[in-house]
Amino acid sequence: MSFTAPDSDQLPRTLNDYYSRARAGMSPRNRAYFLAGAGDGQTASANETAFQQAEVTPRMLRDLRGGSTEVSLLGQKLVAPFLIAPFAYHRLLHDAGESATARAAEAQSIKMVLSAQSSEPLDRVRSSGPGSDWFQLHWLGSREATQALAQMALDAGFTRLILTIDAPVQGVRDREIEAQFQLPPDVSAVNLARFTPPAFTSREDAQSIIFDHIAETLPTWADIAWLIETLEAPLLLKGVLHPEDAAQAQRIGAAGVIVSNHGGRVLDRAPSTLSALPAIVAKVGPDYPVLMDGGIRRGVDILIALALGAKAVLIGRPIACGLAVAGDLGVSHVLRLLRDELEIAMLLSGCATVQDIERDMVHLKL
Amino acid sequence: MSFTAPDSDQLPRTLNDYYSRARAGMSPRNRAYFLAGAGDGQTASANETAFQQAEVTPRMLRDLRGGSTEVSLLGQKLVAPFLIAPFAYHRLLHDAGESATARAAEAQSIKMVLSAQSSEPLDRVRSSGPGSDWFQLHWLGSREATQALAQMALDAGFTRLILTIDAPVQGVRDREIEAQFQLPPDVSAVNLARFTPPAFTSREDAQSIIFDHIAETLPTWADIAWLIETLEAPLLLKGVLHPEDAAQAQRIGAAGVIVSNHGGRVLDRAPSTLSALPAIVAKVGPDYPVLMDGGIRRGVDILIALALGAKAVLIGRPIACGLAVAGDLGVSHVLRLLRDELEIAMLLSGCATVQDIERDMVHLKL
Amino acid sequence: MSFTAPDSDQLPRTLNDYYSRARAGMSPRNRAYFLAGAGDGQTASANETAFQQAEVTPRMLRDLRGGSTEVSLLGQKLVAPFLIAPFAYHRLLHDAGESATARAAEAQSIKMVLSAQSSEPLDRVRSSGPGSDWFQLHWLGSREATQALAQMALDAGFTRLILTIDAPVQGVRDREIEAQFQLPPDVSAVNLARFTPPAFTSREDAQSIIFDHIAETLPTWADIAWLIETLEAPLLLKGVLHPEDAAQAQRIGAAGVIVSNHGGRVLDRAPSTLSALPAIVAKVGPDYPVLMDGGIRRGVDILIALALGAKAVLIGRPIACGLAVAGDLGVSHVLRLLRDELEIAMLLSGCATVQDIERDMVHLKL
Amino acid sequence: MSFTAPDSDQLPRTLNDYYSRARAGMSPRNRAYFLAGAGDGQTASANETAFQQAEVTPRMLRDLRGGSTEVSLLGQKLVAPFLIAPFAYHRLLHDAGESATARAAEAQSIKMVLSAQSSEPLDRVRSSGPGSDWFQLHWLGSREATQALAQMALDAGFTRLILTIDAPVQGVRDREIEAQFQLPPDVSAVNLARFTPPAFTSREDAQSIIFDHIAETLPTWADIAWLIETLEAPLLLKGVLHPEDAAQAQRIGAAGVIVSNHGGRVLDRAPSTLSALPAIVAKVGPDYPVLMDGGIRRGVDILIALALGAKAVLIGRPIACGLAVAGDLGVSHVLRLLRDELEIAMLLSGCATVQDIERDMVHLKL
Repeated sequence: MSFTAPDSDQLPRTLNDYYSRARAGMSPRNRAYFLAGAGDGQTASANETAFQQAEVTPRMLRDLRGGSTEVSLLGQKLVAPFLIAPFAYHRLLHDAGESATARAAEAQSIKMVLSAQSSEPLDRVRSSGPGSDWFQLHWLGSREATQALAQMALDAGFTRLILTIDAPVQGVRDREIEAQFQLPPDVSAVNLARFTPPAFTSREDAQSIIFDHIAETLPTWADIAWLIETLEAPLLLKGVLHPEDAAQAQRIGAAGVIVSNHGGRVLDRAPSTLSALPAIVAKVGPDYPVLMDGGIRRGVDILIALALGAKAVLIGRPIACGLAVAGDLGVSHVLRLLRDELEIAMLLSGCATVQDIERDMVHLKL
Repeated sequence: MSFTAPDSDQLPRTLNDYYSRARAGMSPRNRAYFLAGAGDGQTASANETAFQQAEVTPRMLRDLRGGSTEVSLLGQKLVAPFLIAPFAYHRLLHDAGESATARAAEAQSIKMVLSAQSSEPLDRVRSSGPGSDWFQLHWLGSREATQALAQMALDAGFTRLILTIDAPVQGVRDREIEAQFQLPPDVSAVNLARFTPPAFTSREDAQSIIFDHIAETLPTWADIAWLIETLEAPLLLKGVLHPEDAAQAQRIGAAGVIVSNHGGRVLDRAPSTLSALPAIVAKVGPDYPVLMDGGIRRGVDILIALALGAKAVLIGRPIACGLAVAGDLGVSHVLRLLRDELEIAMLLSGCATVQDIERDMVHLKL
Repeated sequence: MSFTAPDSDQLPRTLNDYYSRARAGMSPRNRAYFLAGAGDGQTASANETAFQQAEVTPRMLRDLRGGSTEVSLLGQKLVAPFLIAPFAYHRLLHDAGESATARAAEAQSIKMVLSAQSSEPLDRVRSSGPGSDWFQLHWLGSREATQALAQMALDAGFTRLILTIDAPVQGVRDREIEAQFQLPPDVSAVNLARFTPPAFTSREDAQSIIFDHIAETLPTWADIAWLIETLEAPLLLKGVLHPEDAAQAQRIGAAGVIVSNHGGRVLDRAPSTLSALPAIVAKVGPDYPVLMDGGIRRGVDILIALALGAKAVLIGRPIACGLAVAGDLGVSHVLRLLRDELEIAMLLSGCATVQDIERDMVHLKL
Repeated sequence: MSFTAPDSDQLPRTLNDYYSRARAGMSPRNRAYFLAGAGDGQTASANETAFQQAEVTPRMLRDLRGGSTEVSLLGQKLVAPFLIAPFAYHRLLHDAGESATARAAEAQSIKMVLSAQSSEPLDRVRSSGPGSDWFQLHWLGSREATQALAQMALDAGFTRLILTIDAPVQGVRDREIEAQFQLPPDVSAVNLARFTPPAFTSREDAQSIIFDHIAETLPTWADIAWLIETLEAPLLLKGVLHPEDAAQAQRIGAAGVIVSNHGGRVLDRAPSTLSALPAIVAKVGPDYPVLMDGGIRRGVDILIALALGAKAVLIGRPIACGLAVAGDLGVSHVLRLLRDELEIAMLLSGCATVQDIERDMVHLKL
């Protein structure tokens, strides 16, 4: 496994270094697409603020020997309770695209969740990071097409599936509109090329593209229940914010839910994911796999999310920043820094293992 | 129907674009008159902040086919739950004045509420936008004059009347005073020219212009009850913030109330309209028509107001910005963007119809 | 009565104009002395913030004819419920000093409370503004000296006395220290010249100037009770923030209390006066005269203070700003603007008289 | 005792002067090491904010004669309820190092707590300030080494010991990393030179430096209980934030606890010390010695901490600033200013003695 090699003296030294250098170095279009939130950016910003205002009360002088960040999740052992969140078009950030990200994940023994909107072919990404066997898909307009996409992923060796349910449309992406974001000719969702986009029924009385056309192509709980039944791999639902929706996911046999507001990129004014997490965990019980993403910028944030009941978290923008700044080496470094910070946070707060991270260590200010 | 035609490449692309371009392009006097609040601007600012801090918890995977933004209000069918708020002197913003606004409203099938302080003749505005049959008036110093004004509107084809009750005087308009705002010679309230201003009784012992002169020309609940009885059209009262006043309006037969603080332009320190709304709806019950205005800048804000019990909202400053930037085309574009954003917000939060927008979707932070 | 006459076109037009022009025009030393707070300025700033965040819910359509801002206070009739707060050394701000302020007060029928640290002789100030018969004193180190000072004021025709009790030492006046504030040779407390400063007992074991010397010269409740008994005029205590201290003042026969933190110029971290007011009123009952000062910058602020139980308020910094900007004309204008704004606030909120300003109109955000 | 003598006209005049001049004058590396917090600096900043937002309600007209700031603590009489907090490497700030600080402490009759990471030999510091007989140590990897260090201090004449327990590793010191902080060749922890750093057991299965190596060298409650039993001097534990840890310290015979988050330099997101203090005092009872540090910048802050139950406080950064700006004279001046401000705050709030500082004088806004 070989890495791209920027002069390592010039690599950022801290996570915030990565974030600020990535922000400064990105094109306005990439900045709008990867870093901005929808609408006024309230939800994107609330995600981060919720973590920054959380308080962790540490415990002292506990025996921490032999501790570790390891967790078990859906039958897999993870070296640390976080995965790389699925996001589209890594090649916008770096020529080596999703393969670079997968290579870095492999080097750090962390799993990447590959997006269906990958800008590189599934097989190439899989071979760059064989340990990353999670795949994220979205609804393709019909049961059959969505099932075919899932099957394609399973055939390529992916074993855990995530279905994103919170983005039936893009949201009000003002920042992308202002930056006139569009994909360059050499970047596309190559793995979706074989699927034809859903055709709308032509209706004479149609008044609203949203309700009369797009809504016809969207799934309901019945469709998801059908999909779960037909699939031979665990499926998690990503984009849950209401406890009742989490309970419904549990009832229809979803393998877990991911508390997410799509990084604040869909419905601006949605609550921060951290604030939504506790009620969802309370609803589905402590054993059901609840993951979360959104706003995690520090290792201690992972500890905070786990204290509030998440089994693991997904990390998106920090990875995008690492990739933008220094390709696979950058992603690898960001992953290592996050894990180091998590270990330090656990040591400093008296937690030898993830099980020691208890609810009452954390006080949310909302 | 023909529109003014600025180069459409140069039109703003987002609502915030309209707002910032209008703010930058307006004369200091127009900025003070249309965009500033009274006093320190606390209330004007609180109106917007209340919406920005509201949280909407979306629901997933519901069946949204055939949904729509349609509502029924006072026997009329509206394509979307918002109207253009009445405001004075559109010709300060654009030569085509209220006619341009009415034309845009017609194009988008949205209703404009025409202000009695229209800078264009009633008939011309009516013919520019026949679908806009709402008229707003204020007390003209006596029962007779006010009734005559209302009758003039009814004669011109208006069918729904709004009486503004929260601005017996202008408020402390420091920003207008600083900008030395005054109407240019070619802009005036042309439809009020026939009405003579109220004459003050000369009193030797008068010490206060406010309490000894102006107060004599103001209406009380008894006057409004009389007016409602004499009119043959529904009358709504605009400018209610206290639940008891809403209840009183209901008792005397007002067709509805509009929760409003005059856009923060009258009593600075009045509460935000969004924070005042729930207690008023609780007081008058779910069936009584309660509308609101103030602080709505996004489609999702309309969803928030409806969740808290408003039957519809009135939009003022966004329309003024559209008119200032690009005349009828700008207003039309702003209306379309608001409706698109509302549809997107409904889709993303799982609401096919306005009836699906429920109270517990929204959490206010006050 | 003749006023100084700056070109009236160049006078400020609004209260905020006066404040910002005064701030800009003052010397750094005056700015530190008159406008800054003690320490970090937290309390000075909290005074203003408490008012800015207060919410006033107005009532509509009440009969307001014949209303007025008049109040009765300690047997006197005031045209409006505010007085000019006592503050030292007006001649630092304008050559005409306290005489200019008194002249302006007279012109507006408002009472000035003259400070014992007046930079002009009592008699001259009295003759400039005969209607202003309130005098503020502080403890002069002994019962006898303090009584003599009070008697001097009574002899000069003052009929209402205020004793400041919250400033036994100056507080941590960092801003004055940084600006190296000191009185110029031609400004001094001319009326105190005849009183010798308190002599400290020399003590061998003294370790603290504060506790071993200054504390010996300070009054206790017993001293104040004695003073009240010997005086033939009502005495109010200024500088009360704790309800128990207000109750004690009531018990010993003080004519009233003034809730004050000395404009934030003494104990930084003291609560804002507006936040302290309600508990004090609750303690002493609705009939006992409770006044307040601190943070009032708008007419509506007076309404807010009255809603929370104050019988009247004292205005300091706005007057200092008026004096600094335009002498007697400036003070007169500021007084008129405050009264106009109060009348407007009353009209807009549905209060014909001060008695109509009710507790539940105002919601404090603290 | 002779002091360094900068031109005293050029000395800062206020505490904030010291802080801002020190911040401006320090090298980026010193600024990162002495003034920054760990991570995003949230905890370091929260420490200060908690004090700035606390409210002190003063009492008036009490008899304050003969008052003083004196307290008894662990059998010692302190002239004021604060000590100089232990911090490392004073020679980074001034050539005269810990000796200068000790000399200033002696001059002001305040005790310095000497850090084990002193950059000057114990004996030299002791002789510069014989009144300062407190010593702070940290765990040296084993019971024996730590005991030897403590004994070294006792042999040098120190009589009160503090063990820091909240910094098993450094925390995420991004600001130091960015500034590439490292000790210059002529500054080191000279008193620790004789102790060999703990050797790690080599383990084949080790995956984490933190949990597999560092954790082996850390103490547990059992180790501390052993240390307390073997020592012949009182030992306080510094770095307690959870009430249960304070109770455990009390149970094993610690002489007291110091509520501390290491100035925000270890676990960022830990609560402010002021917010943690009340629950800890409630847990261990009013008689058990609870001290605190973190965020104290003003004399009134000491009063606030005492009102919430601290017996005394430790002051760190203000002393570092004094030392950086003007050596021993600067430290001496800062100590005097703090004590003066405390006396003023006590006088202004009606407290003659530390016992008069009561819980209900202070209201925390958290």
